Amino acid sequence: MLKISLLTIGDEILIGQIINSNASWIAEQCTRLGAKIILHSVVGDEREAMLSELDRLLFVSDVVLLTGGLGPTHDDITKSVLCEYFNDELIRNEQVLKLVEDFLQKRNIPVTERNQKQADVPKKAKILHNTNGTAPGLLFDMTGNVIVAMPGVPSEMKSIMRTWVLPYLESMMTENKEEVVLYKVLQTAGIAESKLADLLGNVDDFLGGGSLAFLPSYKGVRLRIGVTGNTSDLAREKLNQIEKHIYSKAGKFIFGENDDSLASVVGKLLKEKGKTCSVAESCTGGLLGAEFTSVPGSSDYFVGAAIVYSNEAKTKILDVSKGIIDAFGAVSEETAKELASNVRKVFKTDFGISITGIAGPSGGTIEKPVGTVWIGLASENDVLTKKFVFSNDREINRERSVAKALEMLLNTLKYPI
Amino acid sequence: MLKISLLTIGDEILIGQIINSNASWIAEQCTRLGAKIILHSVVGDEREAMLSELDRLLFVSDVVLLTGGLGPTHDDITKSVLCEYFNDELIRNEQVLKLVEDFLQKRNIPVTERNQKQADVPKKAKILHNTNGTAPGLLFDMTGNVIVAMPGVPSEMKSIMRTWVLPYLESMMTENKEEVVLYKVLQTAGIAESKLADLLGNVDDFLGGGSLAFLPSYKGVRLRIGVTGNTSDLAREKLNQIEKHIYSKAGKFIFGENDDSLASVVGKLLKEKGKTCSVAESCTGGLLGAEFTSVPGSSDYFVGAAIVYSNEAKTKILDVSKGIIDAFGAVSEETAKELASNVRKVFKTDFGISITGIAGPSGGTIEKPVGTVWIGLASENDVLTKKFVFSNDREINRERSVAKALEMLLNTLKYPI
Repeated sequence: MLKISLLTIGDEILIGQIINSNASWIAEQCTRLGAKIILHSVVGDEREAMLSELDRLLFVSDVVLLTGGLGPTHDDITKSVLCEYFNDELIRNEQVLKLVEDFLQKRNIPVTERNQKQADVPKKAKILHNTNGTAPGLLFDMTGNVIVAMPGVPSEMKSIMRTWVLPYLESMMTENKEEVVLYKVLQTAGIAESKLADLLGNVDDFLGGGSLAFLPSYKGVRLRIGVTGNTSDLAREKLNQIEKHIYSKAGKFIFGENDDSLASVVGKLLKEKGKTCSVAESCTGGLLGAEFTSVPGSSDYFVGAAIVYSNEAKTKILDVSKGIIDAFGAVSEETAKELASNVRKVFKTDFGISITGIAGPSGGTIEKPVGTVWIGLASENDVLTKKFVFSNDREINRERSVAKALEMLLNTLKYPI
Repeated sequence: MLKISLLTIGDEILIGQIINSNASWIAEQCTRLGAKIILHSVVGDEREAMLSELDRLLFVSDVVLLTGGLGPTHDDITKSVLCEYFNDELIRNEQVLKLVEDFLQKRNIPVTERNQKQADVPKKAKILHNTNGTAPGLLFDMTGNVIVAMPGVPSEMKSIMRTWVLPYLESMMTENKEEVVLYKVLQTAGIAESKLADLLGNVDDFLGGGSLAFLPSYKGVRLRIGVTGNTSDLAREKLNQIEKHIYSKAGKFIFGENDDSLASVVGKLLKEKGKTCSVAESCTGGLLGAEFTSVPGSSDYFVGAAIVYSNEAKTKILDVSKGIIDAFGAVSEETAKELASNVRKVFKTDFGISITGIAGPSGGTIEKPVGTVWIGLASENDVLTKKFVFSNDREINRERSVAKALEMLLNTLKYPI
């Protein structure tokens, strides 16, 4: 199988200022091709650390995909380090220069010497033109071992991966008749990790050499099946068998596969049934709406939302009676009910969902501690409500509220009363 | 200086199914202490890969912080690998067992044998009790070299880090009189990376041995200053000098420091000035509201939002005239103006912000391609509008829209007409 390692260059990732989302995106794309990811490594903008990582990663893998450090400023040293590593030198590439100048002129940015230097590229590298920025990708093919360097800006990296690198890796795999590794994820909700494990029983009985991983998160436990095969077809057949077994044991907890999200599955069901929904958010402040509308085509079923953060907004925009808020509080079953029914009426939708809670860090009381959230789901004849007590963490409380609201709608759509 | 490496265990991170947010959180916490992060590494749930990484990371660092693979299922092999590495054995720890049982019973989860096994811990390890889950942290102190293993669930890892690991690292640094590394970030908006670099000139002239990194993103370019010193005070003094110089050259583009976000800085200004705001969102579907309300205490100035995804919602909820939408389209200067003024009126706020655009992937035309976004900002006397043409990527278009809307409000607050 084709072994790939990822090397991320940059102090900003190393010291934790930004999350390494590039690595997971690249890993996912390569895994889809059927290649095997061996290792991710992150080092700072330091010559020696980069040189020793290159050595090490090339030792354990066929391909190293490197990102970062190709920008125009003094801390971007990837090009010079690669020249040192390959005993190469930088030369001005006129085609790249033209692209850089065009790119900047189109955006009315003056072309400085600093920008022009982006067109100085290592002699031995194949140039991977960058249509989204000024730093081209660089590919070094050294008799079997391949190193690709790409800029760290996600949109630029992604376009270079899609246009150049993924097709290149795919042809490498075909030429070398590499063994294929396949993965599939089954997404569950409403069951704990250890219960799910008990339900499936001894995994060795049905894996037949494949692998099964349990991936718990607040959105549910995902099950990842992994298999290898000499051809795609053989691998796929193995995978289907394992999948069938899991469905037979735990099918009712499985809501989706692979990239499905609760929002995309709920959206698909709404669309199939020709239903619409709207949302009233308090503590989540728009997160549920943002999650619904993260799905392309969501305008088919998502009509809108009212974010009613203040009590006044709750009464004014969604007509929640002041009496109810005064008597039971903004975070209460009664308010959640009113919010859900009223948003449904105002937006004229089939379903109305409400979230009202205390995200924290302040605002909690003994009766209603931080993390208390009421969720309401109004349909034509009924309003369902549920209370949750999550954690002390504002962000987690907001995200779990969104997940639980979607789960409630999912269950109502799957198992209508 | 105290050198720390991070080792993340888990196929789900390796193959890109989840983003390694633990690594960045841990790195940030350690950096704040003044420790130096040397390397992050991610390997799968494989014995040999783990053993060889442990070797390598201990060779280049004083401390290895490991996360993942401590759960109750068959793919969690970290404990047994650590036993092998340290020639240790697992023994049942009664105190941990009691905590595990209490934890589960409180949540009405039956205690299975699988759960009880969480109380089997390596003999040589110091136990770091986990109040948020069932897998305890494990600390091995081997004459100078320290390995800490923590569960991969973020809330459990964070509580173990805060309660046990960070104080431990701090005392190591004090005892060994380690050199201190300090970082500070200055956040800029409204200026390109290369222009900012030109404005600052030759960095070696003012860094005096410190470092300066340019970190561009669609939210602006962040400048990270790094210094070292024998004491905290000496390091801080160096840092202040560099910071002063940068402010003198580029102060007007700097809107915040370190963890500040556009939303938090805008929020602070709104609060200081006693002003409120509301939001009308179309293509961003709640993201701007979610960003405003991600700041604790945002209820002081953020009143609410209307997410008017459909045209009908725009006319019904925010009273945008059907004539305007018919004549100019939902994505137009005129509609943006109406949305901003009307949301301001409906929510009775000082400012009203609107975002209406074509996020993609479909819905674009030649005149209004995917990525076209109009943003409106209504204040008492005026409605400011701006048009942007971003990219082909739905998520990027939504996030850039949010950043630009906040930037417009920031500028209005900082430089009122």
